[in-house]
Amino acid sequence: MIRRCFVRLVPAAVLLFAAAAPAAAADSRLTADGRIPVVFHVTNKDPLMWNQALNNAANYQQAMGKDKVFIEIVVNGPGIKMLVADAEVEPRVTAALTNGVKIVACEQTMKGAKLTKNDMIPGIDYVPGGIVEVVDRQREGWAYVNY
Amino acid sequence: MIRRCFVRLVPAAVLLFAAAAPAAAADSRLTADGRIPVVFHVTNKDPLMWNQALNNAANYQQAMGKDKVFIEIVVNGPGIKMLVADAEVEPRVTAALTNGVKIVACEQTMKGAKLTKNDMIPGIDYVPGGIVEVVDRQREGWAYVNY
Amino acid sequence: MIRRCFVRLVPAAVLLFAAAAPAAAADSRLTADGRIPVVFHVTNKDPLMWNQALNNAANYQQAMGKDKVFIEIVVNGPGIKMLVADAEVEPRVTAALTNGVKIVACEQTMKGAKLTKNDMIPGIDYVPGGIVEVVDRQREGWAYVNY
Repeated sequence: MIRRCFVRLVPAAVLLFAAAAPAAAADSRLTADGRIPVVFHVTNKDPLMWNQALNNAANYQQAMGKDKVFIEIVVNGPGIKMLVADAEVEPRVTAALTNGVKIVACEQTMKGAKLTKNDMIPGIDYVPGGIVEVVDRQREGWAYVNY
Repeated sequence: MIRRCFVRLVPAAVLLFAAAAPAAAADSRLTADGRIPVVFHVTNKDPLMWNQALNNAANYQQAMGKDKVFIEIVVNGPGIKMLVADAEVEPRVTAALTNGVKIVACEQTMKGAKLTKNDMIPGIDYVPGGIVEVVDRQREGWAYVNY
Repeated sequence: MIRRCFVRLVPAAVLLFAAAAPAAAADSRLTADGRIPVVFHVTNKDPLMWNQALNNAANYQQAMGKDKVFIEIVVNGPGIKMLVADAEVEPRVTAALTNGVKIVACEQTMKGAKLTKNDMIPGIDYVPGGIVEVVDRQREGWAYVNY
């Protein structure tokens, strides 16, 4: 009887490890369409850092394959000027949008800076709060890079 | 017998998924009193970034509900001047403390900068090492934001 | 029979929690030799931040025990000058390497800056892309600190 019990428990143990392992493994933290998700968080007022974020987005897509990764650039605080229509990086922001990078502006920051959606680069998205966004994404398992 | 074994294993499998799922889910990474925990890490010497961290703390509390989140601001390196008693942001630091934000200074940095607790804003906390703190918090599942 | 089934399922449930718990616990995210792994990401052009990263590496090793942690400093973008042979922090970079800190330069950044391995501090390592590296390490459970 003891031996039979043991035999019966083996399948449960096998299922157990099969199910528990993905809970910690990287592969369970993908977007619904199987991409590696990363949030780039831009707060810096220095255009050098805006260009760095945009370089990194392009290089990361190229290194991994554009359909294998999902990059969301969250912009708030002093970084918000990166996304106004007359920003020096406007052509690069537009190119990133065309390449499938999601770029979101913090509406809380915009309100403080007296910016409306009409002031911003067309095609970007908006979130009520930039920090809520970067925290939520990390809690869903996204990697985080700061600029 | 095979059929009965299968029936017996179903409850184990159900338990399995019930237990394994929370291991990866966001909801398991809350403070003991059910708050979403976030560590803000300030190393920058620029008061613009200190104000940004303090803005973000206030806005994040307001967006989520002050009793739903737990924010710890860890200050080390060139950022330490944010927490000296005569810092230009002192009133804002004190207001954040009053609003339940935990603010900790790195004692290792203070030693190097010849600062004692008497030099610092009353009400802040202290940790032996700022990096130990931000690493430990991340390993407990806290989100990380850098300034 | 119900009682006997219950008895048989207990070991499975015990195994279950024993296996599922580590999936979320910090201790499962160690290097193969049991160290706490941390990635320091340097993108800043300011030598103040290079020194800060090097200070933090030394202090973190000292606080935790040099054999208890594994620090990898990933350098890309405007930060790359930290690792050229004539960098003002060269002696400190070399000391960190001697102390077991892994330091890697982004080859993509080097290419853009027309730097070859001959231009760099001896003993450092190289990765094809700095962002791929910091994302991969985070996805393996490493903590992240930005400079």
